[in-house]
Amino acid sequence: MGEVLTSGSLSTTATGLPAVRDLGPLYADAMEATPDHADEDALQRAYEIGRQGIARGIGLLELATIHHEVLARALKRISESSRIEEEVRRAGKFFIESLSPYEMAHRGFSEAVCALRSLNETMEREIQRIAHSVHNEAGQLLDAARLAIAGVGRDASPSLQGRLRELGEILDKAETELRRLSHELRPIILDDLGLIPALQVLAEGISRRSGVIVEVDTCLKGRPSPNVETALYRIVQEALTNVVRHARASNVRIQLARDAKGALHCGIRDDGAGFDVVTLLSRKERGGLGLIGIRERLNAVGGTLQIRSETGWGTELRIEIPAEK
Amino acid sequence: MGEVLTSGSLSTTATGLPAVRDLGPLYADAMEATPDHADEDALQRAYEIGRQGIARGIGLLELATIHHEVLARALKRISESSRIEEEVRRAGKFFIESLSPYEMAHRGFSEAVCALRSLNETMEREIQRIAHSVHNEAGQLLDAARLAIAGVGRDASPSLQGRLRELGEILDKAETELRRLSHELRPIILDDLGLIPALQVLAEGISRRSGVIVEVDTCLKGRPSPNVETALYRIVQEALTNVVRHARASNVRIQLARDAKGALHCGIRDDGAGFDVVTLLSRKERGGLGLIGIRERLNAVGGTLQIRSETGWGTELRIEIPAEK
Repeated sequence: MGEVLTSGSLSTTATGLPAVRDLGPLYADAMEATPDHADEDALQRAYEIGRQGIARGIGLLELATIHHEVLARALKRISESSRIEEEVRRAGKFFIESLSPYEMAHRGFSEAVCALRSLNETMEREIQRIAHSVHNEAGQLLDAARLAIAGVGRDASPSLQGRLRELGEILDKAETELRRLSHELRPIILDDLGLIPALQVLAEGISRRSGVIVEVDTCLKGRPSPNVETALYRIVQEALTNVVRHARASNVRIQLARDAKGALHCGIRDDGAGFDVVTLLSRKERGGLGLIGIRERLNAVGGTLQIRSETGWGTELRIEIPAEK
Repeated sequence: MGEVLTSGSLSTTATGLPAVRDLGPLYADAMEATPDHADEDALQRAYEIGRQGIARGIGLLELATIHHEVLARALKRISESSRIEEEVRRAGKFFIESLSPYEMAHRGFSEAVCALRSLNETMEREIQRIAHSVHNEAGQLLDAARLAIAGVGRDASPSLQGRLRELGEILDKAETELRRLSHELRPIILDDLGLIPALQVLAEGISRRSGVIVEVDTCLKGRPSPNVETALYRIVQEALTNVVRHARASNVRIQLARDAKGALHCGIRDDGAGFDVVTLLSRKERGGLGLIGIRERLNAVGGTLQIRSETGWGTELRIEIPAEK
């Protein structure tokens, strides 16, 4: 890891924060609600407190502090000995110190995710800018060249005109090739015409190259925001790459619709070999990382992913992106 | 967040794992080593145990289990009451349940970092491939066009030859422009000639455009691995962008050297306004994210970053990347 600039222990932040105060009584209540505070109901409440703690930005160290304070009070009621209470508090301090590196690692990850997402967006913007430039410059300059050829051609003999036509063909080829590269970098059509035409071109291209029949089925009206369009395009692209590489499928169907609440639903269903989702995700190999990558792109736009896959049944990705505000 | 496929509580993994067994006695020893186990020495040992726990892959839940077992035994020695021991164990279970969401969030982050890094590498490879294609296709096809023009020119009148020269100039301009775009995407020179020439071209370009004098000072021999070259190039690029945007500097000096152990050291020093490192990193705005982005690129190659910056003194980034195996 890079140098940690906020060095030293974090335990000083562990006490007395305002956010902690209201979780404390909640924690005490939940722990004392049942005579056996390790039964199912109590454990569910504990789990819920953890979720709320994360949502309120309460760190590990604060949570551990709360726990030890509640524990010390509970034990004091049992034993009447003030030594017990003192001992638990001291043990709590010790424990919190051993949790500090976990808290720091967690912060490090959280910052890294933030930085990597931003890096990714920057790269996507750069790619977009350059893809458009390659596309436009290629078009404009080759148009200028063609005009110049036409100017030359007017005064030329028939045999020269034949050669100029050949030259024109070379320039056409150059333009086609550069537009193809620009498109691979980032489909201009995605920015100009929107997600559906871009997905159709993507589907045709993949069908042509791989032989897998890819169908796009949608009656979506209007265009999602650029971020959502980019995310969905890259997700479908990644999903189709996975299908072609691993699924041994003959058909893929991409469905896209908006529900009554304005949420976008995208289904990607193939009739391939299928796989065991949990195993794949836990292996973190290429395929697993592809799926995690899809989830990551979805996280960036607040979306969720469901995967259904069975051997012999094929695979379906179901994506939902909530309505944008 | 995307759907969590491993749903439910994780507390079943919290007990009896082999890795836990050897941390338990260590923890007990450290906690009992001094009469007051909340003194400085004890807390330092606790912190060290946390670091080791992370290194050994011991999760939060396991650590909390160890703590409560040690605590239960310690309290039993004080009170002789078996109810105390029982109570601590039950409270421990409860606490572990409330830690579960933290553990899951941590895993989610850790997976996201993994996925985002892989996404980033994939994008970098794609960019590299297409930058090379744009560069090569542009060159080859325009070469073919120039050959064709020369063929036409041999049979043409002097006035036609003048027009063909103009045509040639348009094609030259097209080629220059496309090579520039390809270079912006990813310097071909980085892959063909290596890091130092690529940094020199980068430095010249930035000097020309911004007026900041950028000097590259190195006697580095041999080429680092492609990953390290890409990381260092992008880091210097990001650092120089930051300097030009925010530092109000006149000079930047980039130094690159290898030490006796084979580790790479790269210093980037400007004479600009300087800033407060901790404040900037904690703000997480553009500048802060730039630095975190640099750290992230370094993490991917096992490198570290030190930042020294003072108002009026300027800023120095010191980067170290260990020798590759």
